[in-house]
Amino acid sequence: MNSLEHHGEYKYFGNIRRRLFVIIFGTDTRSGRIFDIVLLTIIILSIIAVMLESVKDFDEMFEKELEVLEWFFTILFTFEYIARLFTSHQPRRYAFSFLGIIDFLALLPTYLSLFVTGTQFLIVIRAIRLLRVFRILKLSRYLGEAQILASALKSSRNKISVFLVAVISLVIILGTVMYMVEGGENGFTSIPRSIYWAIVTITTVGYGDIAPQTILGQSIASVLMLTGYAIIAVPTGIVTSEITAANSRRKEKVEKICHSCGIGNHDEDAHYCKNCGEELL
Amino acid sequence: MNSLEHHGEYKYFGNIRRRLFVIIFGTDTRSGRIFDIVLLTIIILSIIAVMLESVKDFDEMFEKELEVLEWFFTILFTFEYIARLFTSHQPRRYAFSFLGIIDFLALLPTYLSLFVTGTQFLIVIRAIRLLRVFRILKLSRYLGEAQILASALKSSRNKISVFLVAVISLVIILGTVMYMVEGGENGFTSIPRSIYWAIVTITTVGYGDIAPQTILGQSIASVLMLTGYAIIAVPTGIVTSEITAANSRRKEKVEKICHSCGIGNHDEDAHYCKNCGEELL
Amino acid sequence: MNSLEHHGEYKYFGNIRRRLFVIIFGTDTRSGRIFDIVLLTIIILSIIAVMLESVKDFDEMFEKELEVLEWFFTILFTFEYIARLFTSHQPRRYAFSFLGIIDFLALLPTYLSLFVTGTQFLIVIRAIRLLRVFRILKLSRYLGEAQILASALKSSRNKISVFLVAVISLVIILGTVMYMVEGGENGFTSIPRSIYWAIVTITTVGYGDIAPQTILGQSIASVLMLTGYAIIAVPTGIVTSEITAANSRRKEKVEKICHSCGIGNHDEDAHYCKNCGEELL
Amino acid sequence: MNSLEHHGEYKYFGNIRRRLFVIIFGTDTRSGRIFDIVLLTIIILSIIAVMLESVKDFDEMFEKELEVLEWFFTILFTFEYIARLFTSHQPRRYAFSFLGIIDFLALLPTYLSLFVTGTQFLIVIRAIRLLRVFRILKLSRYLGEAQILASALKSSRNKISVFLVAVISLVIILGTVMYMVEGGENGFTSIPRSIYWAIVTITTVGYGDIAPQTILGQSIASVLMLTGYAIIAVPTGIVTSEITAANSRRKEKVEKICHSCGIGNHDEDAHYCKNCGEELL
Repeated sequence: MNSLEHHGEYKYFGNIRRRLFVIIFGTDTRSGRIFDIVLLTIIILSIIAVMLESVKDFDEMFEKELEVLEWFFTILFTFEYIARLFTSHQPRRYAFSFLGIIDFLALLPTYLSLFVTGTQFLIVIRAIRLLRVFRILKLSRYLGEAQILASALKSSRNKISVFLVAVISLVIILGTVMYMVEGGENGFTSIPRSIYWAIVTITTVGYGDIAPQTILGQSIASVLMLTGYAIIAVPTGIVTSEITAANSRRKEKVEKICHSCGIGNHDEDAHYCKNCGEELL
Repeated sequence: MNSLEHHGEYKYFGNIRRRLFVIIFGTDTRSGRIFDIVLLTIIILSIIAVMLESVKDFDEMFEKELEVLEWFFTILFTFEYIARLFTSHQPRRYAFSFLGIIDFLALLPTYLSLFVTGTQFLIVIRAIRLLRVFRILKLSRYLGEAQILASALKSSRNKISVFLVAVISLVIILGTVMYMVEGGENGFTSIPRSIYWAIVTITTVGYGDIAPQTILGQSIASVLMLTGYAIIAVPTGIVTSEITAANSRRKEKVEKICHSCGIGNHDEDAHYCKNCGEELL
Repeated sequence: MNSLEHHGEYKYFGNIRRRLFVIIFGTDTRSGRIFDIVLLTIIILSIIAVMLESVKDFDEMFEKELEVLEWFFTILFTFEYIARLFTSHQPRRYAFSFLGIIDFLALLPTYLSLFVTGTQFLIVIRAIRLLRVFRILKLSRYLGEAQILASALKSSRNKISVFLVAVISLVIILGTVMYMVEGGENGFTSIPRSIYWAIVTITTVGYGDIAPQTILGQSIASVLMLTGYAIIAVPTGIVTSEITAANSRRKEKVEKICHSCGIGNHDEDAHYCKNCGEELL
Repeated sequence: MNSLEHHGEYKYFGNIRRRLFVIIFGTDTRSGRIFDIVLLTIIILSIIAVMLESVKDFDEMFEKELEVLEWFFTILFTFEYIARLFTSHQPRRYAFSFLGIIDFLALLPTYLSLFVTGTQFLIVIRAIRLLRVFRILKLSRYLGEAQILASALKSSRNKISVFLVAVISLVIILGTVMYMVEGGENGFTSIPRSIYWAIVTITTVGYGDIAPQTILGQSIASVLMLTGYAIIAVPTGIVTSEITAANSRRKEKVEKICHSCGIGNHDEDAHYCKNCGEELL
């Protein structure tokens, strides 16, 4: 009887758990969608609250209210985190997944601020939770697009890193040359600062807080800018080329599936399965 | 008789209406083209008038003249709007079309300025009317080009939105980190302001009104810039890839196919099939 | 006898003319190449002289020398121009060709400066003459490359102009909105100035001489920048797509020529002439 | 006997030499990899030391220590250089190779600083040695990627140089025009300085140290920026197009061809011809 009671209890909790699971993790049911939209709204509100806290005038007027809000949101998210752990079929897997870790880290700062001051702004790690927005939209479609982007960036990783090492070498050398040419009185007070200037220049950001004043310095800067002009084309070229490739790969590889060995990924003009040689229909 | 008279009247107005329609909406007849060119010139003049009104020295000298001009243009455009409504076969459809709404909104500000001050500058919504310029040029050709652009941007919409959410998350987090690193004395007075700085930096605009001063801040900024350097490649890659696809899609539509061997992919100037030598029709 | 003498004279001058023609217009002979290199050096020197004249300290020290140099170069180029007219087979065609007009305009400013002051700096129109540099290098190869670029830019002209009108409309409207939001005290003193700011921002130049100060202004600016971020992708996409097309067009169309009708431009996989149906070998 | 002894000695040294060669030049053995990682770490440390030397506060505190460190690193690199010369099979070829020259130049500045002051910062030429980082990673793979980049940049060299000459001409002319329009009181104090401004603007760097103040100047600048906006698309387009071509060229090289029907274009994982079903070898 005890066991039966226990079983009934388990069944009862199992039911709640299952229902909660559908609401929290599901995206297809109405309740699942509503949960996601409410969650996103709360995330956005909590980020705005943190931002406002950093605006002096605002913080002075509503200091208490903002603090209360922050704790309110944090406790809400804590309950949500526990519910996710509780309802998930594999709590461990969720806890160590990318989204699970972000969910956890987004809770920490408020609790930490009890012991260490100044950490509460780390709450904006919640911004990463905004990625959940894709769950509300037609998830799978966006996942496909994100995968194309990710696969394109993955293929171009090697080329980009070759490119970055070359840019960093260039920037270190030109930064040092400018430090020697311009000197401290024109703002190039140290090599690290000059390298910072070179990065600001080659990426075409150009704050203007440091700018060459001598004719020689301006000439070198001109060469650097025109070089950067040609150089900015390289990562763009790499990524574009890979995105085009990833796009066409995806298009080509959806349709034909071999009825004999079940392998897909055939070219559009394929008449025979590339894996088993069976005719494709 | 009454009915006949009415009919004659209707016929008479019908004639005027038809003629006006050709002039106002047509682009092929001489009068239609002249109307479009005159209209565009007046639109440009009215925009310039509004601009000059905002230049202090100029406004003080010609205050009255500019006000008269503004009313003159507005009344002219009001008559044009009424004529469009009157001559259009489907006045309702015109009124709620994109161009129809713009035409209406472009009239409002002047009339509104009778009741509310400061609204007259909203007149520049007339700038959107400049899109009519394509009517004067060979319309259809430009429409084709615009459609390619539009279709390319439409296909890349999903990828771009994935990309934008990622950028916004990055910008919120890095903005907050910089707020904590640099602090108010270096211009990073609040998180929203720091996020504004991060956007200015990652888009390589770089005003320089806010710029990091500490070595740690400059290091983070350098990483952000180099990241932005690689990131700027992504939307470019997406759009380029889609424009290439849209271009080739359009080309394919015109394609010639051999009725003998069924092979396509012929040049536009091909008279014979490149595969079997059969004449192409 | 008179006629014979004249003939001899003509022949004599004809010889000089022919030799001069080879030197001045030729690029294959040794003397022709030396002439081009010397000419380019003189053009560069004359441009540098004009630049130095504008540097105050330098001009005060060497005012006379620079003026002498300027006249020396101008007289030299005048002789060159006369020699080109004299030796060219079709002097008129040369005089009205692109390079001929530039050669002539490059002479004018110095002579004009006798009558009107301040025009001597227009001499830098000589910079366009630098395009002659491609004559020294293997001309034809660069011409091919330039033609690809030109043809790509020509094909994308329509798309780019659609794009530019859209950008100009956007910039006028956002410039006006910012004028109303920020107002004169933050540097947005007039609509034209605000439009100038919008252009500076959307092209990611970002001087920082005008920058939004209010939170609303900074928000609008952020949207404008992120839009510009996506927008900058469009012309790049257009041109890239066209350059790829122009490149492949050129590659495909060189090889196969029909031995029957002499028509080239066949695809690589063509077995039969697309013009006359003859088999290709 | 003398010769034998000599032979033994030679053999002994030969052994050391061979072992050292494997360590210094090899990348596959464990000792070779450790050597490379240690070397890279030392290079990075030596660059950081030079940078810190340029930071005033730091240099005053640790002047002696930094000088000692610099000499320590230089002597270490001198030994490494001698070892490379000693163990290399073709010392001359190494000495005049790209990496060999960089290795030598990276030693010079410290020794030169004994005779000439201010040269020690040239040490950052060691930054180029960072390119050795690719030796530690899977070298061949990165070499392949670097070759694609290099081959793409090589193919686009001609087009880029056509483009650069055009940009330089444009920049000289517009710089001069702005000098005449704005004049010295607005920062355009000389033509070279105005050209520097034009380069800063057309590359979208936009420091803002010089910015047009007059309405005419701002109008010209706006045109320049919008032109630059379209122009920045050109090198990107060129490089993208070439990278795509280089990528596909490489892919084609690996291609499988059916020995039965002669059709190529099979996927890398294809075991059977997609056209005739024959097994691929």
